[in-house]
Amino acid sequence: MGNGRFRDGGFAIGRLPTGACNTICDVPGVKVAHVTLREASGCHPDVCTGVTAILPHSGNLFEEKVLATAHVINGFGKTAGLVQVAELGEIESPIMLTNTFSVGAVLEGTLQQMMAQNVDIGDGKSSLNIVVGECNDSFLNDMRGLHVRPEHAVEAIERALASDGGSVEEGGVGAGAGMRCFGWKGGIGTSSRQVRAFAGQSCHHVGVLALTNFGVPEDLTILGCPVGQALSSADEGSGIRFGGAQCDVNTSDLSDGSVMIILATDLPVDLQELVRIAKRATFGLARVGSIAHHGSGDIVIAFSTTGAKSNPEDRLIREWLRDGANLSDCFRAVVEATEEAILNSLWAASTTVGKRSRVVRALPVHEVEAMLRGSSD
Amino acid sequence: MGNGRFRDGGFAIGRLPTGACNTICDVPGVKVAHVTLREASGCHPDVCTGVTAILPHSGNLFEEKVLATAHVINGFGKTAGLVQVAELGEIESPIMLTNTFSVGAVLEGTLQQMMAQNVDIGDGKSSLNIVVGECNDSFLNDMRGLHVRPEHAVEAIERALASDGGSVEEGGVGAGAGMRCFGWKGGIGTSSRQVRAFAGQSCHHVGVLALTNFGVPEDLTILGCPVGQALSSADEGSGIRFGGAQCDVNTSDLSDGSVMIILATDLPVDLQELVRIAKRATFGLARVGSIAHHGSGDIVIAFSTTGAKSNPEDRLIREWLRDGANLSDCFRAVVEATEEAILNSLWAASTTVGKRSRVVRALPVHEVEAMLRGSSD
Amino acid sequence: MGNGRFRDGGFAIGRLPTGACNTICDVPGVKVAHVTLREASGCHPDVCTGVTAILPHSGNLFEEKVLATAHVINGFGKTAGLVQVAELGEIESPIMLTNTFSVGAVLEGTLQQMMAQNVDIGDGKSSLNIVVGECNDSFLNDMRGLHVRPEHAVEAIERALASDGGSVEEGGVGAGAGMRCFGWKGGIGTSSRQVRAFAGQSCHHVGVLALTNFGVPEDLTILGCPVGQALSSADEGSGIRFGGAQCDVNTSDLSDGSVMIILATDLPVDLQELVRIAKRATFGLARVGSIAHHGSGDIVIAFSTTGAKSNPEDRLIREWLRDGANLSDCFRAVVEATEEAILNSLWAASTTVGKRSRVVRALPVHEVEAMLRGSSD
Amino acid sequence: MGNGRFRDGGFAIGRLPTGACNTICDVPGVKVAHVTLREASGCHPDVCTGVTAILPHSGNLFEEKVLATAHVINGFGKTAGLVQVAELGEIESPIMLTNTFSVGAVLEGTLQQMMAQNVDIGDGKSSLNIVVGECNDSFLNDMRGLHVRPEHAVEAIERALASDGGSVEEGGVGAGAGMRCFGWKGGIGTSSRQVRAFAGQSCHHVGVLALTNFGVPEDLTILGCPVGQALSSADEGSGIRFGGAQCDVNTSDLSDGSVMIILATDLPVDLQELVRIAKRATFGLARVGSIAHHGSGDIVIAFSTTGAKSNPEDRLIREWLRDGANLSDCFRAVVEATEEAILNSLWAASTTVGKRSRVVRALPVHEVEAMLRGSSD
Repeated sequence: MGNGRFRDGGFAIGRLPTGACNTICDVPGVKVAHVTLREASGCHPDVCTGVTAILPHSGNLFEEKVLATAHVINGFGKTAGLVQVAELGEIESPIMLTNTFSVGAVLEGTLQQMMAQNVDIGDGKSSLNIVVGECNDSFLNDMRGLHVRPEHAVEAIERALASDGGSVEEGGVGAGAGMRCFGWKGGIGTSSRQVRAFAGQSCHHVGVLALTNFGVPEDLTILGCPVGQALSSADEGSGIRFGGAQCDVNTSDLSDGSVMIILATDLPVDLQELVRIAKRATFGLARVGSIAHHGSGDIVIAFSTTGAKSNPEDRLIREWLRDGANLSDCFRAVVEATEEAILNSLWAASTTVGKRSRVVRALPVHEVEAMLRGSSD
Repeated sequence: MGNGRFRDGGFAIGRLPTGACNTICDVPGVKVAHVTLREASGCHPDVCTGVTAILPHSGNLFEEKVLATAHVINGFGKTAGLVQVAELGEIESPIMLTNTFSVGAVLEGTLQQMMAQNVDIGDGKSSLNIVVGECNDSFLNDMRGLHVRPEHAVEAIERALASDGGSVEEGGVGAGAGMRCFGWKGGIGTSSRQVRAFAGQSCHHVGVLALTNFGVPEDLTILGCPVGQALSSADEGSGIRFGGAQCDVNTSDLSDGSVMIILATDLPVDLQELVRIAKRATFGLARVGSIAHHGSGDIVIAFSTTGAKSNPEDRLIREWLRDGANLSDCFRAVVEATEEAILNSLWAASTTVGKRSRVVRALPVHEVEAMLRGSSD
Repeated sequence: MGNGRFRDGGFAIGRLPTGACNTICDVPGVKVAHVTLREASGCHPDVCTGVTAILPHSGNLFEEKVLATAHVINGFGKTAGLVQVAELGEIESPIMLTNTFSVGAVLEGTLQQMMAQNVDIGDGKSSLNIVVGECNDSFLNDMRGLHVRPEHAVEAIERALASDGGSVEEGGVGAGAGMRCFGWKGGIGTSSRQVRAFAGQSCHHVGVLALTNFGVPEDLTILGCPVGQALSSADEGSGIRFGGAQCDVNTSDLSDGSVMIILATDLPVDLQELVRIAKRATFGLARVGSIAHHGSGDIVIAFSTTGAKSNPEDRLIREWLRDGANLSDCFRAVVEATEEAILNSLWAASTTVGKRSRVVRALPVHEVEAMLRGSSD
Repeated sequence: MGNGRFRDGGFAIGRLPTGACNTICDVPGVKVAHVTLREASGCHPDVCTGVTAILPHSGNLFEEKVLATAHVINGFGKTAGLVQVAELGEIESPIMLTNTFSVGAVLEGTLQQMMAQNVDIGDGKSSLNIVVGECNDSFLNDMRGLHVRPEHAVEAIERALASDGGSVEEGGVGAGAGMRCFGWKGGIGTSSRQVRAFAGQSCHHVGVLALTNFGVPEDLTILGCPVGQALSSADEGSGIRFGGAQCDVNTSDLSDGSVMIILATDLPVDLQELVRIAKRATFGLARVGSIAHHGSGDIVIAFSTTGAKSNPEDRLIREWLRDGANLSDCFRAVVEATEEAILNSLWAASTTVGKRSRVVRALPVHEVEAMLRGSSD
């Protein structure tokens, strides 16, 4: 889809090696799937939205919760479920992403899926906390139409369960269908980094999946190159500010948006370490040019697939983590993977026609790559 | 309903005078209404739940947001909407209360009601943040049945808009229909305090509405009297621990629960003052015997109906608030109103038969009053 | 000293058993000592202050840090060292208490003591974070005179190291020398609770040491009895509001004050559990009548002597803690010990003459006990 | 001093115009001064440290407090005074910077200076909260020697009061005397941005002063160019990793460090806006390559010189700030000024010989500028 991935052009972010697939699914057990609602899938042309499900593991999440935390970079957002995550440091549901007005429907669908799996939650056992993140796709999507229904959430979870892991579809899919990033078509992007300990004998991963829907064109920065400013000045007249759309909306509203950053790791961190790791996503976000606009809901949700357990074999790596320099390597992995996940969302996305025939164009990747090559010559 | 209110027995909490109705609606403009789903209202006997809507004012809340904050005492809860409240310090929707599994439906219904009122939110204008609090009523209510639907939220809001303010129905109504408090029937309770400045020439209010669903019997403390222990030891054999219900559930799950505390004021506080005021609800909660159990979602949502505006006539009272002793009086008002609101929820509630013919009995108010009189002789 | 301890009168707080000495030193390894600067110890009559040192263990704290957290109930205070405690969840120094203006001197003295013990901190090894809490004793003490010097901090630590643990001197000693509580003489108080698991086969402790310097007389509440109001109305004319002092200061300044609550446990909690445990001190504070006045620096510093280690023998008790009902028992222990520690500070204190011959009287304990007996008949 | 400033080479950070002097003192009323303790100033050659005082205004800060907040990016630091700043949202003292082990001495000196100015603080009036930030300069400075004494703090404040504002000495001066940044000589750097409203008719400023002491060489990034990696690989053998020093310390300790970011504005923001503005410093820090290492105390202290007052003439600009796009411009100003302040600290610093004849070299600015020119050709 779109123009492939950022690394295809021969560029790299940072110094650490990526995982095998360079996706969040390089973290063993993590699965991702999308349900996309577009004209192509039989919807009205004004529908351009969807649901993305991220499963920390394929088992019963209510029975086997994962160590988790959230970090709010800028809280102009409607993510549900974070109060309990903050109190208990764990997630007990799939992490669901959708558009802002569909949080209720996705909450209900995810609840139905989990009630079917757990016959006693909400009746005898304590209740269930579900995490649903969101961005506002109303430029391209008829968000007021409430087209996402509970069954779409159930379907996304079931697709994820049935998936093989490894690769992840990126760009304008699932929750990313209608998203914009720096004025260009954004959506889903993912990346990963290896964290090697003991001279490489131990290898863990940090993976990031980003749902990108933020930024103004002139802020887009790639490898330090002010790409957004160059593109803006190059064809100001062509309406590139809105990726080619007719400007029928208030431009200052368009400066808003959000980014959801889902961060996974199989490092056996404790909660405080995970909290500190999650905060480093901000540094990756900053490097693509974000300033966390006032109207942006920039939220990091992080989990460790092994953190809650205390496996004896983890003792060595836990000691390794207590050395600050090693923990800093984990921080670096987050910074790099976040930056690259965001770029991948731009690379993967295709020019998209949505609500009222509005168009958001894909980033002109070849033009951008030429700029990047020029600046590094 | 039930046995009236705590003050009817000749008792008082604290030293400050109450508002005219001793309800959250003593704060001018605040309105409250309930939709109750019970057998009596045509539902299946296993349904015992509902929705409560609290309106900070009767105008367009999206256009006229109110200064607001939330304080999480213990975050084992699923309240939606708090991320944005924390970031911006404002609420732009009714504050809705319901059971844990109905947060999605109530989010959707409230959204529908507000989309009808605001034709451009979610299309051009930035989106909408809705606050929905919850407690787990699954002991008495078939919570898994998802009986609350979006239209019940709409109806609760419309009833509130049509109400006169002033008095508020308490006990097992609205979101409180199926709630338990210290093992007795709880639900909705409310109280208020006057905050007088300038030798009484200026009078503002602090009002609290509590949705009570927390605590174990032996912790119930009234005016310092260990009422819960006395009652427990008096008829241990009768199953009073569950208010008379057959014990067919895990007792340690029953020790959990939650309390939602909605705090309103017309004091023209700034956000930081409101944040500090909201935290004092903990002190009122502590005085009825709560220890904020592990499994309790104890959350305060506070708003000021005048805080966001900068009326010239508020300048004097704003200066008055800058004197720490005066601000401390506002703190005291919160402590007292919170304690009394919780007690009112117990006084007002009636013995209730719910799911699978389970019974939660009303607090034996006359017996308790006799204890209190004995201890104060 | 003073009138003994609260329990001597036959009263109890709560339901849980106390530790053997009912002090913070019931937590194995914890030691406490005071250096008191008073006329009796050779100082000018206007000097009425001191230093208290609490050692989490007697070893090298920099090498063997303890799991720790702080909870700010109301932050009108100058405690140093909390930024790093919040980030890392550990304490690596004695916890020092003194008057507000002596934080600098105590920081420096503690640093000198620890540099002597650790020749490489601050030179090659990373630096050192020292925790110093404070209350304002300027009503009785010439705080502006900066009478506490670094060597007093060193002496307090050395005395603690040389102490046997177990009992702790309470009342107007150490940092408590010049403190007032609810208008009466306050200072140091301590209490503990047993937390028993596995039908009593395992016993851990929660211990609290409070430095009390807060509250207005009419708020003092003991066992739910409004003792402060009764005393105030009984001899309003006698100047009891200031414990007998000539009122030569602004009364609203006197409503301010602070309480430092140091909480120790040998439960092998993880950091998140400790964070949640620390927050429950608020509930104990509320029960003696505090509303956390605007001007009060009410701060909880909590540590676990076994938390940071992962001893194999702790596995069972760690699983036990994961049951919410058991964790709630730990919460209850904190609530009870905090309430009783504060009362002990009042019981132990003696009428004190300080700066400019001001007097703060001891709480009339026998009169209060008579009230309490009356109300419980 | 050093090689001038970053802009001298013809480069710029971001898009917004700088203030007249491009320093924090472009914010009207803000003053800065340093006291430097070096061999050149008569100290032992192992002494290489100092004190920096930042005055929000030249009046009586205790009487005229400024709206303020702090944001902890990574809390491995010992800054004093932040508890009360967080609670009240104001600063009532100069903001002092020094080395880690001198926080106590600087607290005491600043207290003495303010007691002299305010004869009733600490005696009748409530006490005083002093803010002291720090970084660890023990690589170049004999930090264990406690060479900074209270009188140095007093002198720094008095020099600031006597200064003209406008320009600010940068590099290895004051608290910056012994600091390292990315392995090169760091210290004090400053920058500012104009925030223009109403088509330029209204002009406010955001100013940043940074005390830089963080980072590993290979992370240094300037205008997106991986300068640090290029320099490291170019002369690895020359010991450039430690700026030319003999490597007699553990290298992983050297990866730690800190940065203090002091942010001033004359925008009449409210506290919540200031809180949000302060968080954007992280984005500037990220852009020079920081990942906020585990051992780094990265702390932002922000104040508004006009925020606490409610001047009628501020009403228009306050409304302007409520438009999210305008507030985002303030965010951008912070990001840009922070990035440039850090770079200025590197540009201004000179090669420095300190403790045990260790050397930290200045960044080879001309070489770096050549790299930057190459990459932008």
